[in-house]
Amino acid sequence: MTELNRLKTIGDDAADLADRAAALDASDPLAGFHDQFIGSDDPKIIAYLDGNSLGRPLRATRDRISRFVEEIWGRRLIRAWDEGWMDDPLRIGDQIGHLVLGAAPGQTVVGDSTSVMLYKWIRAALAIQPGRDEIIVDVGNFPTDRFVVEGIAAELGMRLRWLEADRSSGVTVDQVAEATGSRTALVVLSDVAYRSGYLADVAAITAMAHDHGALVLWDVCHSAGVIPRRLDDWQVDLAVGCTYKYLNGGPGSPAFGYVRADLQKRLRQPIQGWMGSAEPFAMAEHYTPSDGIRRFLSGTPSILAMLAMQDMLALIEQAGLDAIRAKSVTLTEFAIQVSDELLSPLGVQVGSPRDPAVRGSHITLEHPEFGVATARLWELGVIPDFRPPDGLRIGLSPLSTSFGEVYRGLVAVREVLWQQVS
Amino acid sequence: MTELNRLKTIGDDAADLADRAAALDASDPLAGFHDQFIGSDDPKIIAYLDGNSLGRPLRATRDRISRFVEEIWGRRLIRAWDEGWMDDPLRIGDQIGHLVLGAAPGQTVVGDSTSVMLYKWIRAALAIQPGRDEIIVDVGNFPTDRFVVEGIAAELGMRLRWLEADRSSGVTVDQVAEATGSRTALVVLSDVAYRSGYLADVAAITAMAHDHGALVLWDVCHSAGVIPRRLDDWQVDLAVGCTYKYLNGGPGSPAFGYVRADLQKRLRQPIQGWMGSAEPFAMAEHYTPSDGIRRFLSGTPSILAMLAMQDMLALIEQAGLDAIRAKSVTLTEFAIQVSDELLSPLGVQVGSPRDPAVRGSHITLEHPEFGVATARLWELGVIPDFRPPDGLRIGLSPLSTSFGEVYRGLVAVREVLWQQVS
Repeated sequence: MTELNRLKTIGDDAADLADRAAALDASDPLAGFHDQFIGSDDPKIIAYLDGNSLGRPLRATRDRISRFVEEIWGRRLIRAWDEGWMDDPLRIGDQIGHLVLGAAPGQTVVGDSTSVMLYKWIRAALAIQPGRDEIIVDVGNFPTDRFVVEGIAAELGMRLRWLEADRSSGVTVDQVAEATGSRTALVVLSDVAYRSGYLADVAAITAMAHDHGALVLWDVCHSAGVIPRRLDDWQVDLAVGCTYKYLNGGPGSPAFGYVRADLQKRLRQPIQGWMGSAEPFAMAEHYTPSDGIRRFLSGTPSILAMLAMQDMLALIEQAGLDAIRAKSVTLTEFAIQVSDELLSPLGVQVGSPRDPAVRGSHITLEHPEFGVATARLWELGVIPDFRPPDGLRIGLSPLSTSFGEVYRGLVAVREVLWQQVS
Repeated sequence: MTELNRLKTIGDDAADLADRAAALDASDPLAGFHDQFIGSDDPKIIAYLDGNSLGRPLRATRDRISRFVEEIWGRRLIRAWDEGWMDDPLRIGDQIGHLVLGAAPGQTVVGDSTSVMLYKWIRAALAIQPGRDEIIVDVGNFPTDRFVVEGIAAELGMRLRWLEADRSSGVTVDQVAEATGSRTALVVLSDVAYRSGYLADVAAITAMAHDHGALVLWDVCHSAGVIPRRLDDWQVDLAVGCTYKYLNGGPGSPAFGYVRADLQKRLRQPIQGWMGSAEPFAMAEHYTPSDGIRRFLSGTPSILAMLAMQDMLALIEQAGLDAIRAKSVTLTEFAIQVSDELLSPLGVQVGSPRDPAVRGSHITLEHPEFGVATARLWELGVIPDFRPPDGLRIGLSPLSTSFGEVYRGLVAVREVLWQQVS
């Protein structure tokens, strides 16, 4: 019997769960979207459980990029800058604002990487908080957020207040409140924790910080495109996020950034390149920042790298973000159920919130052997992510992930783990 | 008679030049490369004279990108980070170093935009020049270079020494020498002036600056891929450049940056994101810069946006950079000859050096009516660039530009200008 067949048959032990997966897929109103992704019919990919790290490409994207190279870049050539490219960072930014962030037009821009945007947003924010010398950040925030903040704090001689959040959940309002005061310039947090998947209370934390005169920057990398956000309603000051996770923009596709409209005029970002200047092609003698959100651009953004996300944004519009969130909740719930029934006997723990109201679209399962197991799983075509020291991260992207895929993936995890520990 | 036919027949006045163009194309050893570019057979593109602003896509690029989306992103998914993507910024950087810059491995990296890289390189350099409070920059440098330098100088309270270079040439060694002294921290110049095409003496200026203890950062956007550079031999400290011009990387493709090996350990860049850290996927508690050139990365670079340049690098390797430079010299010489014979009677002036030893691969022609003329030329499929207030920039990319194209393009310029001024 081949290895793959063994993996398939081992599921017989848990026929109930297999039936439940089949029933969930049968009644899933979003099931039809699955086929639109490249590789969804590839027998060598048994389960892709890392859509929160790198979303799958859409078939439409392959065609869009081919057409772009042939017809736009190849035929319109430099003229295309006047015919649309100059507006792409703002136009696509507005789409993300509208469909994903709950942001009115003119507050969202696409460009740079998340790290570079974090740097620019943080530096700009600190400059309008004179007399305040503390930045609040949590130890569970994504490394690049922490690293960027560390570098800026060291350079400006500011003090970092590190919040020690619970590893299996995340930062609470009370924790932030305890650290926030008249010295707090800025709070830098992720709404969904990259490891546990904990969903923070953006509205409450933002309001509390504002009461103390602090600004708040939210990293929404792990929520954008999968959980409805209401940045305008919540009066969020600043946000940044990825487009290569649930927005399927491709590896390293440009970041997006949000700056609340009434803050824009007060903020001046540190990397004053020509694309953020008032008239880039005037070749002016001195830099004058553009009005509005464009002033937060620096260099020439990659137009090619902004193509794929547009296809996913169209799909999100079609599916509706509320429906996507509803499926996301059911997917994570089902993954936890399968883990409880099939994996907990092998010592696997769920390192994520069990209450879906405070959970994003991924869960982390914990076992000391998961580092070794991941390499084997990848070979078998079962693709979760590994987060040291012991976390197997199961990322569920509702438009491209089926319940059957979750089931098959976790059955394979059981098999591989069982071989290792027995 | 149609407009296009009129444009074609007007060339009869200058049959000698047409014959010369044909003879030059017939004896051009690089002529065979022309057909490898998309749009090279498009009858609606009469002359593409802006390869120095946006290089044309290669046919191979369209296929490479399709394969990438389908097979790598679509099928290898997140595994591809381990299977090559992590190394791409350094691997492709080394290729650029070897083929284009005259740089040994480990000194060139691809990522960010030119503006962001300029910012990082400049900030890193200034930090190791304590007690020096002046930056030298010239008024003819590209806007983003000047803007970025202005922002940094204002932030750090440094003094800018502006060099007033001749508009039709560029910065001389004597000019830089006069401004350089014990207060000079950094000299920021372009080797090829974006407007005039003047080619500065990199070796002499760098040596002179070093004699005064200053560092030099060269923007090589307008030379990379078309003029052999010998950064290692010249002991250049820092360089940055574009990949979307003569490296045909596509609109806004990532920049490249060079940091001389023995400087790398001393430099710490300001945007300390995870991709420049020692072990990005270790999710470490604190930032430790990677060894070597990787420490100058910040965020996740766009892998998709790094594909196209690899095809052009392969072509450059095949053609040889010396042969490319030789054709570039002949192309600009021919363009000047055509301008002298056909356009000077209408009052057009050559705003570029006539000595090819100090000229890059573009020339700028000057006439007060060129702003209006450019819009009309673009409609006709003749595509130069316009640089205010009066410059028509003719950029000649040797592997994709034929002598016939230069001839046809400048004949069209004459026709359009003649209609305007008569």
